Amino acid sequence: MTGEQYLFLPGPTPLPERVIMAMSRSMINHRGPEFKEILYRVTSGIKQVYHTNQNVLIFPASGSGAMEAAVVNFISPGDKVLAVSIGVFGDRFAKIAGTFGAQVEKMDFAMGKPADPDAVIDRLRADNKKEIKAVLITHNETSTGVYNDIKKIKAGMADHPALFMVDAVSSLAALELKMDEWGLDVVVSGSQKAFMVPPGLSFLAFSEKALKVHQSFKNTSFYWDITAGLNYLDKGQTPYTPALSLFYGLDEALKMMEEEGLDNILLRHKDYRDMVRGAVKAMGLQLLADEDNASTAVTSVIGPANIEADTIRKYMLEKFNIVLAGGQQSLANVIFRIGHLGYVRQLDLLAVLSALEITLEKLGYPINKGAGLIKAQEFISKRLD
Amino acid sequence: MTGEQYLFLPGPTPLPERVIMAMSRSMINHRGPEFKEILYRVTSGIKQVYHTNQNVLIFPASGSGAMEAAVVNFISPGDKVLAVSIGVFGDRFAKIAGTFGAQVEKMDFAMGKPADPDAVIDRLRADNKKEIKAVLITHNETSTGVYNDIKKIKAGMADHPALFMVDAVSSLAALELKMDEWGLDVVVSGSQKAFMVPPGLSFLAFSEKALKVHQSFKNTSFYWDITAGLNYLDKGQTPYTPALSLFYGLDEALKMMEEEGLDNILLRHKDYRDMVRGAVKAMGLQLLADEDNASTAVTSVIGPANIEADTIRKYMLEKFNIVLAGGQQSLANVIFRIGHLGYVRQLDLLAVLSALEITLEKLGYPINKGAGLIKAQEFISKRLD
Repeated sequence: MTGEQYLFLPGPTPLPERVIMAMSRSMINHRGPEFKEILYRVTSGIKQVYHTNQNVLIFPASGSGAMEAAVVNFISPGDKVLAVSIGVFGDRFAKIAGTFGAQVEKMDFAMGKPADPDAVIDRLRADNKKEIKAVLITHNETSTGVYNDIKKIKAGMADHPALFMVDAVSSLAALELKMDEWGLDVVVSGSQKAFMVPPGLSFLAFSEKALKVHQSFKNTSFYWDITAGLNYLDKGQTPYTPALSLFYGLDEALKMMEEEGLDNILLRHKDYRDMVRGAVKAMGLQLLADEDNASTAVTSVIGPANIEADTIRKYMLEKFNIVLAGGQQSLANVIFRIGHLGYVRQLDLLAVLSALEITLEKLGYPINKGAGLIKAQEFISKRLD
Repeated sequence: MTGEQYLFLPGPTPLPERVIMAMSRSMINHRGPEFKEILYRVTSGIKQVYHTNQNVLIFPASGSGAMEAAVVNFISPGDKVLAVSIGVFGDRFAKIAGTFGAQVEKMDFAMGKPADPDAVIDRLRADNKKEIKAVLITHNETSTGVYNDIKKIKAGMADHPALFMVDAVSSLAALELKMDEWGLDVVVSGSQKAFMVPPGLSFLAFSEKALKVHQSFKNTSFYWDITAGLNYLDKGQTPYTPALSLFYGLDEALKMMEEEGLDNILLRHKDYRDMVRGAVKAMGLQLLADEDNASTAVTSVIGPANIEADTIRKYMLEKFNIVLAGGQQSLANVIFRIGHLGYVRQLDLLAVLSALEITLEKLGYPINKGAGLIKAQEFISKRLD
């Protein structure tokens, strides 16, 4: 029996039963008092995760929607922006800005590596005329499993006035992020990652400084307009119909996150990373990301020389109903990715690691059986002491 | 005991248990074979409701999102467009176009009246130079409960090349609409109305002619880009993460709609309208919309001279947990609106009509008790013969 899929994607992630149950209710009036309460409670909960006292708006959209909202609200066509990319989602942020009409200067770093903070800081220091209006950067690059040291880069910008805009879709609540303390201006996230909710809601957090920039130029979008969003939020409403069932789920998920505590959640994600990386190394496989910037949300594994990464994924799907993500662009069929964010438990990871060992053996890889599992058990055991 | 809310809004509408149950399942890989099947099945089902063999894309967004997608994909900034408005949602379509940078010429008709087809047709005939690139029009105006005769207006345009773009968010599957036969170019709709699904998915249907217009100018949006949408649809995917749980619900709702049959669904909505209007008239109250263009989705009732409409709504909410919509703009506190679209049964409407009779009596209105209910029963009875 294969049963339900084991979903080890870097989003959408598995859902807690409590979230599924919370969503299983009837619709309510989205202009009534109960929705107002939910909207305020949820907005306040999200602000805590962002570590911000500034602005958060929730859009009925995918994460890419809030990325577009970030571009449309805080950049004018013709503005020069610096887009730092270490993979597919860095490319996407740059593309959204370019499509909108920004003059995009791209800084690309090799897939599997983080951005070099000094290189980015040097580029901004060289911008004497302060022509660069915004820096676009990915926090956690889902396509490679590498995260950028946004805290260091932002600090290094010193008094450069460019808005610092972060795609934190797959990092928020999986990786430390302190919006106000670090001075981040715009931070985008979404419901289907560490928040343990289905896709369809995205979050746009923005500083007072960013809001002033927005107010200084002509708005061209009704749907993404943050001025309208803020005005309606004052009344406990949204400018157009919100995705109610996802709000129910998010409300419950935030309760669960509060019960667990944000520090514990971050620690748990670190453990997952270390456990998966330790076990995979014990199996003799290579990891794409170096230790220093390895993602707590997803781990990219390089397939053995004589076995294609997609062959491993295919076998695991067919025999165990385990869904792993593949590599993208130059990494297609070179890596496979194990997602470990959101509603994942350590023993769930034992399942995928065990299946991986068996798969490797069946595909003819000379594996030291059990070595990965023993390593994984050490991590589970450690937290019990 | 008040129990669950009786939701008589013109969206979001009540949900069938089958839809709630269908949504209560785990996430799947949105780049895998099962999602591909769902996406194709759902897209094909929606096309049948539109009566179109042309293009349909589904966005993770509210209905307003697909309205913005219509503007962004088929209009260029600077284009002259004719926006026909008979209420709040006609105003919204015009506003979206204006915000995007179109030169909007607005034709306003009094709230509570439909657009005069001859006036619109005459305006287009006077456009000898064919400067008008698009006509924006609401099919069913939710704020008043009046629908426009889009078939007649489109036919009257004859060979004027302007794209005919219809907001059918609250009309599709509640009011007859034949996209291909009537020659409609762009038709927008959403999940939370007659489709009986929570808000968060919106549909953009467009003709081959509209697609050519789109391809003739520069795209400025990543999120709404139909070229990307069509390319991904070919692979059975979406350009970014779809709102999976709402897809599960829509898939089930479309099965229910197929079982009932589209003709029966349209007839049922006509019955609701006639039943509500007949009963309200029998209570001695006035209706905002004339017989000819009265909406099958929502009925606007004018409160008695000495009782404010919002007093009636407030009483019904407090005593019966019944949610009615209020009037907007110049109709605020003048009308209340009874939504009757989507998952509504005749006996559910009996509840709201009964509560309305009692409310009117309690508020001192000289009502002929039971008159409205007897009228309503006649409609229920008629369909049993």
